[in-house]
Amino acid sequence: MITRWKQTHDAGITYPEGFVASGVRCGLKTEGPDLALIVADGPASVAGVFTTNVVQAACVRYSKHVVERGVARAILCNAGNANACNGDRGDRDTISMAEMTARALGVEPTTVLIASTGVIGHPMPMEKLERGIPLAADALDREGDTDMRVARAIMTTDLRPKVIGVRCASDEWDGEIVFGGVCKGSGMIAPNMATMLCFLTADVRAPHPLLQDALREAVRCSFNRITVDGDTSTNDMALLMANGAGPCSIAQPGPAMDDFVEALSRVCLYLAREVARDGEGATKLVEVRVTGAPNEGDAELVARTIAESPLVKTALFGCDPNWGRILAAAGRSGIVFDPRSATVLIGDQVVYETGSSAPFDRDAAHDYLTEPEVILTLDLASGPASASVWTCDFSYDYVKINAEYHT
Amino acid sequence: MITRWKQTHDAGITYPEGFVASGVRCGLKTEGPDLALIVADGPASVAGVFTTNVVQAACVRYSKHVVERGVARAILCNAGNANACNGDRGDRDTISMAEMTARALGVEPTTVLIASTGVIGHPMPMEKLERGIPLAADALDREGDTDMRVARAIMTTDLRPKVIGVRCASDEWDGEIVFGGVCKGSGMIAPNMATMLCFLTADVRAPHPLLQDALREAVRCSFNRITVDGDTSTNDMALLMANGAGPCSIAQPGPAMDDFVEALSRVCLYLAREVARDGEGATKLVEVRVTGAPNEGDAELVARTIAESPLVKTALFGCDPNWGRILAAAGRSGIVFDPRSATVLIGDQVVYETGSSAPFDRDAAHDYLTEPEVILTLDLASGPASASVWTCDFSYDYVKINAEYHT
Repeated sequence: MITRWKQTHDAGITYPEGFVASGVRCGLKTEGPDLALIVADGPASVAGVFTTNVVQAACVRYSKHVVERGVARAILCNAGNANACNGDRGDRDTISMAEMTARALGVEPTTVLIASTGVIGHPMPMEKLERGIPLAADALDREGDTDMRVARAIMTTDLRPKVIGVRCASDEWDGEIVFGGVCKGSGMIAPNMATMLCFLTADVRAPHPLLQDALREAVRCSFNRITVDGDTSTNDMALLMANGAGPCSIAQPGPAMDDFVEALSRVCLYLAREVARDGEGATKLVEVRVTGAPNEGDAELVARTIAESPLVKTALFGCDPNWGRILAAAGRSGIVFDPRSATVLIGDQVVYETGSSAPFDRDAAHDYLTEPEVILTLDLASGPASASVWTCDFSYDYVKINAEYHT
Repeated sequence: MITRWKQTHDAGITYPEGFVASGVRCGLKTEGPDLALIVADGPASVAGVFTTNVVQAACVRYSKHVVERGVARAILCNAGNANACNGDRGDRDTISMAEMTARALGVEPTTVLIASTGVIGHPMPMEKLERGIPLAADALDREGDTDMRVARAIMTTDLRPKVIGVRCASDEWDGEIVFGGVCKGSGMIAPNMATMLCFLTADVRAPHPLLQDALREAVRCSFNRITVDGDTSTNDMALLMANGAGPCSIAQPGPAMDDFVEALSRVCLYLAREVARDGEGATKLVEVRVTGAPNEGDAELVARTIAESPLVKTALFGCDPNWGRILAAAGRSGIVFDPRSATVLIGDQVVYETGSSAPFDRDAAHDYLTEPEVILTLDLASGPASASVWTCDFSYDYVKINAEYHT
């Protein structure tokens, strides 16, 4: 059990000892910092989870190999160009980025992870990176606004930087674990790693296979439970570097590992919810909670179908307590349930039960839906399992952002 | 083979001999006609295909039973109230609607089909139907603007009535077959029968089981291949009444039946495309054509994933030749293919091939996307099969219509 949890949003990726970072401008975006570098003082154990899209950017294919080897020193991430669908040239450019970074840091190229986000199908302007990477290496630091600069350097259509720093403890551990995290994403967000990048650091000592299991489980219950528009991207990844600088060590599966997974999951869920909240054009964060399902997979599928329904999401934008759309979306999820036993709640108010509309306070439900965080609950009355999916509403601005974000 | 095909859009449901109809106002919508009645002079063979949503309106459950008995005399359809999720009262009200209709027409209640469309979860105002149904029975006709009044009476957010009349012939038949058709739908449209109502008439003689097979196949390749927003509804149905008033008879499977299925499919595809074209807020009709797939099911799934992608649909609204979004959507469809062998075309122009952007004329592609009908093609280079899915773009007005269409 986690016995102590202290969370800050003034610090991020360099919160644990032994990590430095920088966010600099190299000219890939029209303005602001667009190149981030995160470096561990020594070899760090690494884990990674990647997009399931069959169309994968060069950096995804490349970084998978680094993760498989289990040890990393650095993550280089650029925004403004996804380097996806650029053929063999894209692969060569990613390798060059890793080599340039390795040279600037004096480390092995095989320990440098690469992440890219931005427009698809435009070759990477390598001359800009040739200038930018040494700049990023020179700017490495862990003081002042470093973590915020990193967060801004990886943003594309995000409105807000997303960072977290956590100190936590468990009776099963030899001491505290310190986590740092940063992520980006606001559109093309869907389960199974959307256009979403997440970088995490920790001062725990843990071998690669355990770290990989922990990250996979944490992502499953966080980043894979958010959806903005159902579109997954070519470039998504979540990476975790653990340097062992702290007192705590996870050597095998067991209670200490379980608590580590729980802590990592909490870190990821915070960042995932921030992504959903910052969804393109979003005016509110929506939790779709499905209870009473036969199993967790069914609960998740129903919740996801509701969370991805454009009709539900536009009704939420309009603050309309339209339980009919919630129920109709659930009904097409592929999961069988009896609509006459199901119950729908908007916030704490029952709006549908026993096969028809409940006598609810429509004005109160409307007012509730104007709040920045809302919860929709559907109880299927078909079993013991539950799951939540987080999303946002669907506004004029979503259309505007995505109709005008030209290639 | 169909040897003659003559299609009109000035006539609809009463185009074949032996059918009369009416569209009257009974006060369920805020304005305009909202109650349609379609009647066969004598017992007609009937077929029906219904929503696959597990949440089904009372009229769906009821009309399924009528179809199973194989013979019908009339279809009563109201707009403005879906009579869905109204519990036992909803079922009783649907039965009352059938009984009132049967009384007004002097037919058996078990031969009256009922369809409803509109808002979910509001009890049906039966006093309005008590006045409206006799009005509809008195107005039965097949002259003048009858068919257009029927089309308008079943509309909700549709901007345009959708009708078709066809005379066609095949060497396999004993003479011409005449079809009439009307449909509605513009939002909550997705494969497997969305908020979509389609009523068809034909003067062919055919037993119920053959008619049912024909309709199921025709719907599979038409209404189940359109999508506006991925949301299927509680009320969808397609119904076909065949009265045998014409010279042609289909007695068993074989070439005559095959040609009948082909003709019926063409009728349905015309109406389905009209629904996609009239999608809420749509500015264009989009055909997503997937070729080179291992089998038709895979081709359809890839086409559907592209056609439902909000990112693709907003790019189409912006007339942006964004092949990256097309490819990324295909990549998350669940079908495995090699992106380096795939080709993307916008109209006739190749925009992506051999793993990267083709050198295409961006201005010409943009201009093409401003046209009212556009075709996107993705060749997977993985097999012989192909399939098309029809959709529309995603505009500000989609959000406006659905955020403001209050319960």
